Formats: sequence, structure tokens, C-alpha cells
Amino acid sequence: MTLDVEDMEKRRVMLIVSYDGTNYNGWAYQPADNVITIEGLLNDAIHAATGEDIKVIGASRTDAGVHAYGNIAVFDTCSSIPPDRFSFVINHLLPEDVRIVSSRQVPGDFHPRHCDTRKTYEYRFLNSKEEVPTKRLYTYHMNIPMDEKRMLEASAYFLGEHDFTSFCNVNSQAESHVRIIYDLHVTRIGDEVIISITGNGFLYNMVRIIAGTLMQVGIGKKEPKDMADIIQAKDRGKAGPTAPANGLFLIGYKYPDGTFEM
Amino acid sequence: MTLDVEDMEKRRVMLIVSYDGTNYNGWAYQPADNVITIEGLLNDAIHAATGEDIKVIGASRTDAGVHAYGNIAVFDTCSSIPPDRFSFVINHLLPEDVRIVSSRQVPGDFHPRHCDTRKTYEYRFLNSKEEVPTKRLYTYHMNIPMDEKRMLEASAYFLGEHDFTSFCNVNSQAESHVRIIYDLHVTRIGDEVIISITGNGFLYNMVRIIAGTLMQVGIGKKEPKDMADIIQAKDRGKAGPTAPANGLFLIGYKYPDGTFEM
Repeated sequence: MTLDVEDMEKRRVMLIVSYDGTNYNGWAYQPADNVITIEGLLNDAIHAATGEDIKVIGASRTDAGVHAYGNIAVFDTCSSIPPDRFSFVINHLLPEDVRIVSSRQVPGDFHPRHCDTRKTYEYRFLNSKEEVPTKRLYTYHMNIPMDEKRMLEASAYFLGEHDFTSFCNVNSQAESHVRIIYDLHVTRIGDEVIISITGNGFLYNMVRIIAGTLMQVGIGKKEPKDMADIIQAKDRGKAGPTAPANGLFLIGYKYPDGTFEM
Repeated sequence: MTLDVEDMEKRRVMLIVSYDGTNYNGWAYQPADNVITIEGLLNDAIHAATGEDIKVIGASRTDAGVHAYGNIAVFDTCSSIPPDRFSFVINHLLPEDVRIVSSRQVPGDFHPRHCDTRKTYEYRFLNSKEEVPTKRLYTYHMNIPMDEKRMLEASAYFLGEHDFTSFCNVNSQAESHVRIIYDLHVTRIGDEVIISITGNGFLYNMVRIIAGTLMQVGIGKKEPKDMADIIQAKDRGKAGPTAPANGLFLIGYKYPDGTFEM
């Protein structure tokens, strides 16, 4: 038996990344000074650990202020650090509001965006008369009572395959606006109303526009049945507002082999 | 009928104050520059609103980093601002991580510390293998599995009237260390283990030392029955560590008339 030197030299490593987005300008690297991004932090930390110039590939380029429990980054390395030890090593080189939950080797052709995945996001409202300071960074405060049953009724219209142009930022450069939503539900836990949505992919601002539209249903500004017309219209102007970034959490990914990363 | 000018001129107003303690040096005013406290912020905001030099009296002088849903501040004012409108006015003059939940007039002899109240605190652990960045400011992370049933068993020993010297910072200047605990329970909600404790008052660091001791029971370092000996010993050295400030929340107060402020 001989060792395959090629395999020893270059390995693709996957990181599961959890972060508080409050202090960052989103995921995607930006060259400007004083613009700190999650991707930039990871590149710097991996460089510090391995000496290699590495640019990670992210699964989801979350906007400024958006949080994640399980975003994904992959990179190729010749480092001798065992793949499952990278989480430990890199965590010492990252600020405490960015944590590598786990790391492992993946096949060399694995690409976090070019494969069949299911992605889950949550959007959280604080539905209370008064603001709650300790929740201000992680919820969107709505002081008008929200009826989560109406919101759940409305959510059924989104399930399945649709053209989601009405729920897409007009600056989107996506070739197609057709996406599949596998699951969308709305629950209340105390004074929080939580929208959970799973799909095969989401357009620019899509989850936040769906959240803003369901919010309008919750406070009685729209009817659940209006959702059919809004989707049909393929017109961003028909849907509700884009809910603020700080209520949004990227929960995790489910890959075809059934593994759920978060 | 004549108006009582004296009453019109001076009124005692109570504020219910909610805050994220992360960015503050605790409740109690400190004269040093660059030391920002909740009490100092309130004094400044009330001065800006009324023109009066006012020093609020707080119900609980929470430590740096401790959070509150319902701390209480009272002050006397000759301002024409209606008492129940103070919350609205002052909120415009405070940073977003400090909010006045409500305000109202109270009797002129009402003192938030010199009366028979029940005070409730919560202490929150994040009991998970990995840290969660969005919870880092509001929980204490413990990566060893905690058995909340053992903790609940231990909590029974604290109920009732005891000398809590073992659970009091050695620098305490309290004349008596006897306090009554009316309720103490431990629950798990997902990956959070929450201690809720209600008493007629708490010594310096008492809740955090009880939390640190129950944590040791949870991870198997102490037995539930050890609590009896620790209380009996009246020796700070016998109890567990002082759990960090960021997991502690002052929930609210219950006054003899049954009103619960939070």
C-alpha cells in the first residue's frame, strides 16, 4: 500500500460558521479598510493558522446585520492541521461573536452553492407593547398585536415552486426567480413570533420581504388570500416591506445525503 | 373645592426600567468620566426633560453586565409632565439599550427598597457543546452537560428563611445575612438551563453564587444534599463560584398590593 501524496497535499475543508451579524458588514469580503466581513475574518484566521493565502467559498452571502447558526465556508489547504481540528484552531483566531461550530473534510469537488441543498432561515419578531433591550439586536419589534394564525394561513400560499419576483429586491441579478419553498410555518413563543422557512434557495432579500408581507397579514393590513395575487403579479411593489436584517437568522443547510449542518 | 397646590407641585414618579447591561458599568451612579451607569443616564434624561436636578432612587443596584426587564427608579418632580407620560418622554432621551417600560405616580412616601417586596431574578446558562454567538451576551456558556433535575432537587434546600452567608460576597456590608427565598426552580428550554429565584431580598452576588453552586450540582461536582451543609456552614468558601454577570436578569418586583412590575 502506498500513500497517495496528491491527496495528502490538498484537502477541501468545510467549516460550519455561527455568528452574531450585529458588528459586521455581512458575509461577503469587501476590500475597503474598516469594512469588516465574516468572509474577510475567516480568510485572515485561516492565513494566520496555515500561512496559506486562502479565499473561502461561502454558502450564503448574508447581508449586514443578519445572524447565522450554520453558514458554510469551504477552502482547500495543504496544511497538516487535521480537518476536524480546524474549528478548534481557528476559533482561537476569531472574535467571540464568530464561532466555528465544526469542521471536516469534504470531497474535492464539493461546492457549497452548486449542489442540491435545502436551506432554512428564521425571521423573529418581538411582538410586545414595549421594546425589550436585550432582544433589540435579534428581533424586529412590532408593537401592534400580530395574529400568528392569520400568518400561518397566508404562509400556505408560498409552498411549492413559484416565480418569486414579487419577493425579490429589484436589483437582483439572478437569471431565474423560480424557487421551491418546502416548508414555511409561523409560531408564537411568548412575545416572539417566529417565521421558519425552508427552500432550495432564496433570492436577494426574499426571506425579509416574505417576513415583511406576513407581518402585514399579522397586523391586519393584508388578507391571507392576498398572497395568491401578490405571487401572481411578479411585481415587487405588490408585496410588503423588506423586514430589517437584525431579525433574520440563517439556521442551516440540509444536503442530499441527509446531513443537516447547523 | 380647592386644588391642593402642594400636591400639584411635587409628585413622586415610578419608572419601570428595562436594559441590556452589556455596555454599562451597572446601575449605581459613579462620578468618574467615561463610566456610564443606568442611574446616571436616567438622571441626565430626567434633567433634560424637566430642567430639574434629580437623583433617582433605584430598587436594585445591579452589577456591571447584569440585565433587567423590570428594575425600578423613583424620583420627585414638580414638572407638568403627566406621570404616565414620563416613559414616552424619557425614552426619546435614552439610548436604545435602556427603555422605560412604564411610568406612574406613586405615594410620596413610597421607597423602592424600604418596603415589603418580592424580587425575581433569572440566571441563564447556555448548555451546549459549542458557543452560540448571538447568545454570548445573555447566557453563561457551559459545555459540560447539566442535569437540570439534579439542580431542581438541590434548589429545594434554599427555600424558606436562612442565613445565606455562604452565598454572599465577603465584602458585603449587609447587617443581616438572613433572607427568605419563596421560590427557586430550574427549567430547561432547548439548550438553555434557566434558574428562576424569588425572594424578599438578595445579598451581594447571592443569586450569582447560588447559580454557580447549582451549576456544580448540574455537572456532577456537587450533590444536591450538599446544599444543606453549605448553607449551614455560613462560609463563602464552601459554596460554588460566582457565575458571571451576563447570565443574570432582574425580572421584576411584586409589591404587597399584588402588583407585579416588569
